[in-house]
Amino acid sequence: MNLFYQPAIPEGVFHLDEDESRHAVKVLRMQVGDPLHVTDGRGGYYKAAVTTADARKCTFTIQETNTTPPRSFFITLAIAPTKNIDRMEWLVEKAVEIGVEEIYFMVCQNSERKTINRERLLKIAVSAMKQSGQFRLPLLHDIKPFAEIVSGNANQKFICYVDASNPHLLKTQAQPNQHYLVLIGPEGDFRPTELDLALQNGFSKVSLGSTRLRTETAALTACQTLNFINL
Amino acid sequence: MNLFYQPAIPEGVFHLDEDESRHAVKVLRMQVGDPLHVTDGRGGYYKAAVTTADARKCTFTIQETNTTPPRSFFITLAIAPTKNIDRMEWLVEKAVEIGVEEIYFMVCQNSERKTINRERLLKIAVSAMKQSGQFRLPLLHDIKPFAEIVSGNANQKFICYVDASNPHLLKTQAQPNQHYLVLIGPEGDFRPTELDLALQNGFSKVSLGSTRLRTETAALTACQTLNFINL
Repeated sequence: MNLFYQPAIPEGVFHLDEDESRHAVKVLRMQVGDPLHVTDGRGGYYKAAVTTADARKCTFTIQETNTTPPRSFFITLAIAPTKNIDRMEWLVEKAVEIGVEEIYFMVCQNSERKTINRERLLKIAVSAMKQSGQFRLPLLHDIKPFAEIVSGNANQKFICYVDASNPHLLKTQAQPNQHYLVLIGPEGDFRPTELDLALQNGFSKVSLGSTRLRTETAALTACQTLNFINL
Repeated sequence: MNLFYQPAIPEGVFHLDEDESRHAVKVLRMQVGDPLHVTDGRGGYYKAAVTTADARKCTFTIQETNTTPPRSFFITLAIAPTKNIDRMEWLVEKAVEIGVEEIYFMVCQNSERKTINRERLLKIAVSAMKQSGQFRLPLLHDIKPFAEIVSGNANQKFICYVDASNPHLLKTQAQPNQHYLVLIGPEGDFRPTELDLALQNGFSKVSLGSTRLRTETAALTACQTLNFINL
């Protein structure tokens, strides 16, 4: 099933954007009256029918509206982006497929990358949401300083940090049905002053397992772990 | 710490191959007497010292030998490779980082890809093993027909298959400390005849969660799940 995306349906916008119109009309050769499945990325799933098969502005009429409630838990991932942006694009795709509510990017003292292309990452997120048949697009924020992220609120706040005195696994520390905020450091990890600031702000230091993971693998493993304990 | 790889140390080979020799001598500028950390990918971790700083054949002498036992469980992943080989390269890297003992590739009826470049995937596996500080290289087999894979042995055999009558999660079916064999189908999934053959061979049909996952994401999620229940 091809799922299309129009975030402004609740505001009364009943056409696809140019890219999706082209896909529907040119690639899939949809015609007037053909069924169309659309989500607004805000929990809404609409069964619609094409009213104008225009490859630049494909309009539709809604025949049935379904609403998916939010999940009983909320995962906020905050990650220091890797130097190689491909690894972040991959992470966004995979985290969305597996299930995540919100993603922050942050600048840490050891960060090698201080910018991201939010628009590009958002496109990847939309594509992953549609491909995995989900109806909620995660919030994807622009990059912020570590100090701002660390002052954020959540029921359970974790900083993934690997050192000799790190006895607690995220698996055993996380409780089901919570709002989690998980911090994943840059290549080279957090500096001790950053760890201290996180601990002062109520974060618990956790480990993800026994092997040394790359930044993006750690982020995905944290996401998998939190989904897993809620499964 | 830079970890080097020489699989033939147990057979008495005490030099690095050409690529790693160049890395040690040209990039890291190692000199005679410098400490060198080497694994044989078979559980052996060696503290060594450079004896000839030759950028084509860097020799070393072993000063200390450590052996890591195998894990208490054994994960065999069998996956139908995706059309886009990048997704398989990514999977091999991530599965090795997270922990996997053996990977098979298989040709299914819906397979769009029937070949892999085993040498290239092996290089990626070696690199991921070294990068994640592990001392065991997973077995990585060449591509085989589904019928051959499905006749393989393990304590717990699972086929990941998404349909309406699929009540069992891998998470709840897998027991700790077993040898697992998990089958991941192609884009388009297994055909019903393949599913039947697997069931006849003692496989249990399992689901990985509530979202629709791409082939490589499903394989990694299965790997994460099995590592998770053994954590």
